[in-house]
Amino acid sequence: MARSQLSPHSGAAQASSVEAGEGRSAHAGPRVDHFRLENGMDVVVIPDHRAPVVTHMVWYRNGSADDPRGKSGIAHFLEHLMFKGTHAHKQGEFSHLVAELGGQENAFTSYDFTAYFQRVAREHLGTMMEFEADRMTGLNLTDEVVAPERDVVMEERRMRTEADPAAQLDEALNAALYTHHAYGVPIIGWGHEIETLDRQDALDYYRRFYTPENAILVVAGDVEAPEVEMLARQTYGKIPARGEAPLRRRPREPEPRAERIVKLADPKVEQPQFERIYLVPSAHTGEKGEAEALDILAHHLGGGQTSLLFRRLVLERKLAVSAGAYYYSDALDDSRFYVYALPAEGVSLEELERGVDEVLAELQRDGVSREDVERAATRLVADAVYAQDSQASLARWFGSALANGGTVQEVLGWSARIEAVAVEDVAKALKWLNKRRAVSGFLLKDQAAA
Amino acid sequence: MARSQLSPHSGAAQASSVEAGEGRSAHAGPRVDHFRLENGMDVVVIPDHRAPVVTHMVWYRNGSADDPRGKSGIAHFLEHLMFKGTHAHKQGEFSHLVAELGGQENAFTSYDFTAYFQRVAREHLGTMMEFEADRMTGLNLTDEVVAPERDVVMEERRMRTEADPAAQLDEALNAALYTHHAYGVPIIGWGHEIETLDRQDALDYYRRFYTPENAILVVAGDVEAPEVEMLARQTYGKIPARGEAPLRRRPREPEPRAERIVKLADPKVEQPQFERIYLVPSAHTGEKGEAEALDILAHHLGGGQTSLLFRRLVLERKLAVSAGAYYYSDALDDSRFYVYALPAEGVSLEELERGVDEVLAELQRDGVSREDVERAATRLVADAVYAQDSQASLARWFGSALANGGTVQEVLGWSARIEAVAVEDVAKALKWLNKRRAVSGFLLKDQAAA
Repeated sequence: MARSQLSPHSGAAQASSVEAGEGRSAHAGPRVDHFRLENGMDVVVIPDHRAPVVTHMVWYRNGSADDPRGKSGIAHFLEHLMFKGTHAHKQGEFSHLVAELGGQENAFTSYDFTAYFQRVAREHLGTMMEFEADRMTGLNLTDEVVAPERDVVMEERRMRTEADPAAQLDEALNAALYTHHAYGVPIIGWGHEIETLDRQDALDYYRRFYTPENAILVVAGDVEAPEVEMLARQTYGKIPARGEAPLRRRPREPEPRAERIVKLADPKVEQPQFERIYLVPSAHTGEKGEAEALDILAHHLGGGQTSLLFRRLVLERKLAVSAGAYYYSDALDDSRFYVYALPAEGVSLEELERGVDEVLAELQRDGVSREDVERAATRLVADAVYAQDSQASLARWFGSALANGGTVQEVLGWSARIEAVAVEDVAKALKWLNKRRAVSGFLLKDQAAA
Repeated sequence: MARSQLSPHSGAAQASSVEAGEGRSAHAGPRVDHFRLENGMDVVVIPDHRAPVVTHMVWYRNGSADDPRGKSGIAHFLEHLMFKGTHAHKQGEFSHLVAELGGQENAFTSYDFTAYFQRVAREHLGTMMEFEADRMTGLNLTDEVVAPERDVVMEERRMRTEADPAAQLDEALNAALYTHHAYGVPIIGWGHEIETLDRQDALDYYRRFYTPENAILVVAGDVEAPEVEMLARQTYGKIPARGEAPLRRRPREPEPRAERIVKLADPKVEQPQFERIYLVPSAHTGEKGEAEALDILAHHLGGGQTSLLFRRLVLERKLAVSAGAYYYSDALDDSRFYVYALPAEGVSLEELERGVDEVLAELQRDGVSREDVERAATRLVADAVYAQDSQASLARWFGSALANGGTVQEVLGWSARIEAVAVEDVAKALKWLNKRRAVSGFLLKDQAAA
């Protein structure tokens, strides 16, 4: 998902409890507390009293891009293994309890972080913390659970990728865009490396990254900070500090200099597709305001059916049945700006790419107007406000931002920064849409093999 | 260089001294001794009494593909630093001595190995060994020599790559072919990583890889094995064993599935160029006879002016001013098969690529004849025999083969294996020339920017 749909709006910051109010934005924002336990674990509390439920999440500042070289997939594999029981609680006990309490649970692994969450009635928050704290250090891994779970992951990979040409093209595009940085390796890992992951790999990884200094507790829901703090001290607070947070070793991608094209033809392709990915700064690597300008640019160029790409290619020229653009601002390292189009019947991908390039040339030539920027900003901020209706979205905004080195204040200030983007900022951001920084992908129906 | 020009011909093997003679090949081959010192260092002796000189080489089984991730260029940087003096001999002393003795010296870093050599009059062999053994463990690195030498390497990179569009395209092609394996990283390293290499990085790398268990001594020239053995024991033999050879950690490239194209346009380009690289097995990763079949295939397809590519594209169709193919068999991991063509005046690279693809389609359709295979084998073996006139080439064949896990016997058996390649072996090897396994490169003159 693009950051444009992931961030709540702005507000003025206060010392430790941060509340929207006197900022330039008129929207009401969440009141957010952020503190740190003595063992180094961050805690973020987002009170939301609309219903008597809580969303309890623990985020670890390690994702697939931190997988040791040759052990790709270990972050995601360990996420699976975290459900295999601890010395205190046998396999399935935690999940069974959540289900019995009428709650929900899940976990996800991204390039930059891994997170676990449960949503339960407010009175069970302490129990969730007990179980989650227990599996931060008490995981019990035996060969009997590791080997079958590896088969599960291999099957997951087969289902998602091996059988899907579009997913295969995505893997090849990412590998061509990130030739050196680990964003070029799929989150789930390369199959031939997943196959070799064993109990010792999982334990080494677990001991390296699953520490209080590397974790962020995010609680959103029908609670206030003092209660969360008390419960967190009784559970997570008892885990001894390791001394320091684990190091993330990530080589930087060299400056791209050549245009790259990736073509995949397969008889299973039903809808051909053109896409292009540009290597661009993220909110974390960009200069001040750069990610926000790219957010505006992506929305103006390709956000929805009023965007430039959609109007030109779908509505006016009938070259495409769909077209758009999006940008992932939320990444620890240099990130991706996507442009895509699906051809109309009888239109070749080469013709479609020329059409996309003409729209991009028009944008480079004419730039954006003040109205374009304001329209995009209004829409992005409104989307963010609506998205806050979801308690899980609220919790994710803060968790992912903190996992990537951001602060609560930065998250709360996002709308104000979006509204402050000027025409010149977007004009400057256009420099990133250079083919030398890009990989173009062609997904084709293989007629010969069909 | 292609292995086809790197390997001497065959012969029958004897116990420890290996001599050509009773093998199926009629050519006279070198007599080669191979033994191991007690500390694990391999020694290869190739007597060559045509002149009273010796070539003394030490090979280490580590190259740029063993550089730790994020420290690219460290193998090559350390090769430079090996000339910076030891605790026993100050900077420049060794090189000065070689020059005074009327000798030559050099060093080179490859993907898979690093080597140092001197050629001197035969009576100075023992002195060379003393100095080379001394710098295997006695290197004296201070910040005063490390920092300026890093600038020298940065300048070397600027000269070779930053100013040369063809070199930039090569870097981009390799990075696109090897998205996961370190052959995708330039031997010299990425500029932004070279800049960060410091004394500690160099020392860590030196201590890890510069050990007797990881080294191979190759002496070719006017000596016999007993003398070399005696001198080696007095010098290299005194270095304590480390206990085991260092581990080379190399992730394997995932199976390629998408065709990739890389385009680089630059106003400095004088001669546009089309090239394609296929990911294929090496002599080390392939099945028995596979690398030899690829050697024959490369020669038939693109070795010189009688090759299929040259005849079709240059002589008959006048699409190209030059065209050819080559194969690097000599690699520890999966290797590269190149096809290239330079367009004639007025021919576009797209037209030229179509021409290349037509030649490849013809080859896939018609295969090769028994005469084609025999002609290629005869030529490859003859080239290898002629190349043995160079003492340095002789020494390099054995050093590079042993550094990549090969044996003296395998090197000596190369010609016999080439002569044993059958038409069906080449037909089978053709399966590797599949676009899904390939990256195509277009080097273009940027007219707009010119």
